[in-house]
Amino acid sequence: MSSVFGKNLKVSIFGESHGQAIGAVIDGLPAGEEIDREELCVFMARRAPGGGFATPRKESDLPEFISGIYTNEPLAAIKTTGAPVCIIIENKNARSSDYAKLNRIPRPGHADFTAWLKYKGFADMRGGGHFSGRLTAPLCAAGGIALQILKRRGVSIGSHIASIGEVNDSFFGVGVTKEQLAEISAKSFPVIDAQAGEKMKALIKSLDGDSVGGVIECCAVGVPAGLGGGIYGLESSLAAILFGIPAVKGVEFGSGFEGSGKLGSQNNDRFIINGGEIVTKTNNHGGILGGITTGMPLVFRIALKPTPSIALEQDSVDIDTLKSVKLEIGGRHDPCIAVRAAPVAEAVAALVVLDEMMCG
Amino acid sequence: MSSVFGKNLKVSIFGESHGQAIGAVIDGLPAGEEIDREELCVFMARRAPGGGFATPRKESDLPEFISGIYTNEPLAAIKTTGAPVCIIIENKNARSSDYAKLNRIPRPGHADFTAWLKYKGFADMRGGGHFSGRLTAPLCAAGGIALQILKRRGVSIGSHIASIGEVNDSFFGVGVTKEQLAEISAKSFPVIDAQAGEKMKALIKSLDGDSVGGVIECCAVGVPAGLGGGIYGLESSLAAILFGIPAVKGVEFGSGFEGSGKLGSQNNDRFIINGGEIVTKTNNHGGILGGITTGMPLVFRIALKPTPSIALEQDSVDIDTLKSVKLEIGGRHDPCIAVRAAPVAEAVAALVVLDEMMCG
Amino acid sequence: MSSVFGKNLKVSIFGESHGQAIGAVIDGLPAGEEIDREELCVFMARRAPGGGFATPRKESDLPEFISGIYTNEPLAAIKTTGAPVCIIIENKNARSSDYAKLNRIPRPGHADFTAWLKYKGFADMRGGGHFSGRLTAPLCAAGGIALQILKRRGVSIGSHIASIGEVNDSFFGVGVTKEQLAEISAKSFPVIDAQAGEKMKALIKSLDGDSVGGVIECCAVGVPAGLGGGIYGLESSLAAILFGIPAVKGVEFGSGFEGSGKLGSQNNDRFIINGGEIVTKTNNHGGILGGITTGMPLVFRIALKPTPSIALEQDSVDIDTLKSVKLEIGGRHDPCIAVRAAPVAEAVAALVVLDEMMCG
Amino acid sequence: MSSVFGKNLKVSIFGESHGQAIGAVIDGLPAGEEIDREELCVFMARRAPGGGFATPRKESDLPEFISGIYTNEPLAAIKTTGAPVCIIIENKNARSSDYAKLNRIPRPGHADFTAWLKYKGFADMRGGGHFSGRLTAPLCAAGGIALQILKRRGVSIGSHIASIGEVNDSFFGVGVTKEQLAEISAKSFPVIDAQAGEKMKALIKSLDGDSVGGVIECCAVGVPAGLGGGIYGLESSLAAILFGIPAVKGVEFGSGFEGSGKLGSQNNDRFIINGGEIVTKTNNHGGILGGITTGMPLVFRIALKPTPSIALEQDSVDIDTLKSVKLEIGGRHDPCIAVRAAPVAEAVAALVVLDEMMCG
Repeated sequence: MSSVFGKNLKVSIFGESHGQAIGAVIDGLPAGEEIDREELCVFMARRAPGGGFATPRKESDLPEFISGIYTNEPLAAIKTTGAPVCIIIENKNARSSDYAKLNRIPRPGHADFTAWLKYKGFADMRGGGHFSGRLTAPLCAAGGIALQILKRRGVSIGSHIASIGEVNDSFFGVGVTKEQLAEISAKSFPVIDAQAGEKMKALIKSLDGDSVGGVIECCAVGVPAGLGGGIYGLESSLAAILFGIPAVKGVEFGSGFEGSGKLGSQNNDRFIINGGEIVTKTNNHGGILGGITTGMPLVFRIALKPTPSIALEQDSVDIDTLKSVKLEIGGRHDPCIAVRAAPVAEAVAALVVLDEMMCG
Repeated sequence: MSSVFGKNLKVSIFGESHGQAIGAVIDGLPAGEEIDREELCVFMARRAPGGGFATPRKESDLPEFISGIYTNEPLAAIKTTGAPVCIIIENKNARSSDYAKLNRIPRPGHADFTAWLKYKGFADMRGGGHFSGRLTAPLCAAGGIALQILKRRGVSIGSHIASIGEVNDSFFGVGVTKEQLAEISAKSFPVIDAQAGEKMKALIKSLDGDSVGGVIECCAVGVPAGLGGGIYGLESSLAAILFGIPAVKGVEFGSGFEGSGKLGSQNNDRFIINGGEIVTKTNNHGGILGGITTGMPLVFRIALKPTPSIALEQDSVDIDTLKSVKLEIGGRHDPCIAVRAAPVAEAVAALVVLDEMMCG
Repeated sequence: MSSVFGKNLKVSIFGESHGQAIGAVIDGLPAGEEIDREELCVFMARRAPGGGFATPRKESDLPEFISGIYTNEPLAAIKTTGAPVCIIIENKNARSSDYAKLNRIPRPGHADFTAWLKYKGFADMRGGGHFSGRLTAPLCAAGGIALQILKRRGVSIGSHIASIGEVNDSFFGVGVTKEQLAEISAKSFPVIDAQAGEKMKALIKSLDGDSVGGVIECCAVGVPAGLGGGIYGLESSLAAILFGIPAVKGVEFGSGFEGSGKLGSQNNDRFIINGGEIVTKTNNHGGILGGITTGMPLVFRIALKPTPSIALEQDSVDIDTLKSVKLEIGGRHDPCIAVRAAPVAEAVAALVVLDEMMCG
Repeated sequence: MSSVFGKNLKVSIFGESHGQAIGAVIDGLPAGEEIDREELCVFMARRAPGGGFATPRKESDLPEFISGIYTNEPLAAIKTTGAPVCIIIENKNARSSDYAKLNRIPRPGHADFTAWLKYKGFADMRGGGHFSGRLTAPLCAAGGIALQILKRRGVSIGSHIASIGEVNDSFFGVGVTKEQLAEISAKSFPVIDAQAGEKMKALIKSLDGDSVGGVIECCAVGVPAGLGGGIYGLESSLAAILFGIPAVKGVEFGSGFEGSGKLGSQNNDRFIINGGEIVTKTNNHGGILGGITTGMPLVFRIALKPTPSIALEQDSVDIDTLKSVKLEIGGRHDPCIAVRAAPVAEAVAALVVLDEMMCG
């Protein structure tokens, strides 16, 4: 249990929300891979705070490359050297005073209490510390690089907001294309059904200090068939890293929980021949059978709980006096974390798929 | 991606459904731990085939200890030596002819097709081969040992069928006790609400060659607070192994997917003092915050798809001729795998929690 | 710290010297690889006891395949299925009474004392238990399979006794061929210089209840250039597993310790062109620079201490009474373990090289 | 094969010799551990360049803490938070022009050739790139923190130059104390026998553009008995990381290679009672039996090859034209790397021992 993951492609995440900087070391990237910094920043901007439906905290969040890349000219594209890539993102806009009182009074739904238990009071929990959603920024930097490499190998990954509260978007269809994935993911509020999107926005605007949860659906098209294997296959690898995204409390593939309410005759995906290839007519299996990819779109969803930081008064306790206290949380918070989680899901998918593609 | 998992307690699963035997090596068990073989067999019998709601295939499934245990007298209880424990379970009752035609015609919803892709036609897929639900027998043997060790350390784990098709059982309450866990888990058809259980049984009996999916809810009481940590904490470790259970397509903790439809003010668990200890009033967090245990009951659910093997005719393809064919599957199959998956969920929980408890 | 090793090819070793059986699970072998059982037995016989210079304990040591292989006809060659291969070797010829008194009186130089510390007296240390040299039998079974796969990929591995006591054999030359490796390794007493071999045998015969140490040199020809990488490369992976061979107390590559006494101008291997390829004129680097293979023969040596079990009376203590006692060890022991360690070194080299070849 | 190591304490090393910076992420350090920055700098200065017997390249090499530490006052001692500690060391004094010609002409004995093979010409090999001895600076930063934590737990680690060329120092005695370790390690030229030290210095001064190899002996006193275990125990873990130190070509424990020339009656360490405790009279086993610590001083030696960069003209090839060329290497080089390797050996020992002490 650590902040390191991966097998042939190892990612080590570091940093605390209000510390000096956050970052990641990516060990095992192939050498000679071009990294388009501008494209990377565009990808990272999708999770960055500052939009109308996210925390007003603003960070430019430009990733600085410390190692593992090489360029002869400042303006040229950079290329990986094969050595570990270390990326650092400075914390420029931290307002620690907002969190001053949290040391003794854990916020309901947060890691404050468990970090205090585990790290005996020594954790730097300002702004959520190492458990903050801010730590998804270096994850997205790492994942953004993986996405660029995968694109050159024919794999495209996209995502959308599948639900906010009780408002549901459509799901990706069995025949979703790379173009559709790119188009939907690039939206400022990524949904398939524009009307659902408007309802979601209205719901978020109506929260008045409260927060709401949501579901992100992520899809990878072009993943080679036959990836994964063993009893603990691709679903295992993906789920382990997806549950490292703060606020994720559920992961499902294909028809997932809904499929468990169905009959076998409804949920089984029949095999057919399409253009000389074996495919399935439906995709309830989400592109994975037996932990191994079928070549169909890889589809998963993650459930994000409502942002635990809400402006409403809540019950908590003082861990020193063991007395009940009322807690009001100041600071700047996302009313709905799910909105910014879409690119994070893509980043995880890209890193796990690339890791597996690097080895038989 | 392999059939090995664990960090300080490593489990390596081997065997194929219709091969000579299946088994597991458990590396890292503490020395001097007593194993009650009878209790282990009782636990393993909960997943064994043969009940009215499971496949008629019968296997005594007695685990044979090859290594890692010691006893001076044949009748005495055995104790671990600290060396790896190898357990073997013979395949006595395999009927391979039932599966003869499957080599060329992959069963919809099964790993037949992906195993063929991955292992280039060399996989022994009789009865599902290494991907068969039968491989959960050695997992339960390993987990059953872990459960006995955990019980001596104050941890109890139980489970029930949370839903079959659209029929739902109640969930474990926030104050669930060890006694309740033991009582519910021991039932031949483990549900909390007896009426729901009757409806589930009726549904299964009505299937007529079709199959149905379900959800298992598993709970661990007495897990020490402060277990886990790092960005990839206990949810990550548990989910990775849970997705290795055949047919699992979804994993959620606490309020999970349903919680993502809620407001923060509804989903946050307020901290209160109870008997001088900090606890939460509700348990939407499922006993884990920030990947670290809170000391509240650890609660998760797994979604199992309907058994893909159904007696109804299905569309498939011949992988040699690339022609469409109709497939009728003979053999003996569970109409609802979920029924037998409850102890498997407990086994996984026990192994992952014990692994983490073995190290600060 | 466990009995499991490997990254993409994971090997889990189990069993105790006087338990029911010993064995290994090999997870991640490619599918469709033929295993010639006779060739495997010939390889394993090279480490088996019973020769004139080894313990008189006799075991047929035939490996039984429990899983991961498939054959349609009993007499046909077997092939891997891609699922984990479990191999079991029965302990048929154990004489536990020889070791009865060792429980309380640790043998100098053995793991008796540390196993007692670590496993709190619960370890089954009869015959050395899980720490016995006998556990190299399943390692050789696993390695023997890897050797057969590597041979088909152009890699040959061989070894010889580089020294026994103070008697030294020649070293493999820079231009050693596959044929020479095969010829030398196949000898019943594998040395390059027959005269040195006679002196070694005479030394062993003269021991009269004492024992002597030795050095094994192992060489792999045909290993692809460019294998390994990162700071912890091929030397790291090999050394970790080589130190798991009982009695190994030193590992060196190329000129090793002797090279550390040389000048740079003597030890550097100059690059030359040979047949259009870049090679080195000498091989002091042992085929590895920066943890990455150069394509030159991979050469390493392992130092094995004298067999700690000697027939002479030794000083020890009674761990219960904390009194000094005299210890005389009965039983059957190798006067020089190194003689049987040559194939074990090859097995380790094969498993580590194959693991690395399976992945970019 | 990567630049990441460790199990419960994971270290990820990054950076290239002439890149922007080098560093390490240390994941899994206990929370609340004080780090004395001044003591850390004193330790790191022991491997820093600039002494009379090392390269004239000077780097202040002050480690900057990016994450994982906390202090309320700038001058106060810092403490770990339990989150990953990222340390960065800037490359201030790199002179890349010295290495300009190396891209096409690999230096004999260096990783230039293999990095070119592995990373297809994309590696940044200026100054040795990621394979440079400079990468031992962040390793020493990580190890220096581990040393401070271990000291509070009763473990002391020290080292000395056991040989340079053919000049040998004495070895650590069986009764070496913490005070002796501290005193010897702190010397500017750490040897036990001052006369041997003078001869070594004279040898190094006489090299005239050539280089020489050496051996470092490292010792840990106070390591708890019973650490390690499994077939792949503490020797395996230590050796894997020791072979990641550039130029290390051999590792041995206790009597090592020399012991392999001895008789069992000479090499076995007899057990005796000393002060009511079981100890051994001699320490040929180097504090480890069966991969598990005995409580005796843990002793190992590493063989370092002569610095491959020498000022003398050498034969190499042009990898583009495949023609033989003469190579003269400019730049600043250590005539004997071993001199600076002593603290690196201590750093590795500290990290591996602390990792193991963190878990049963």
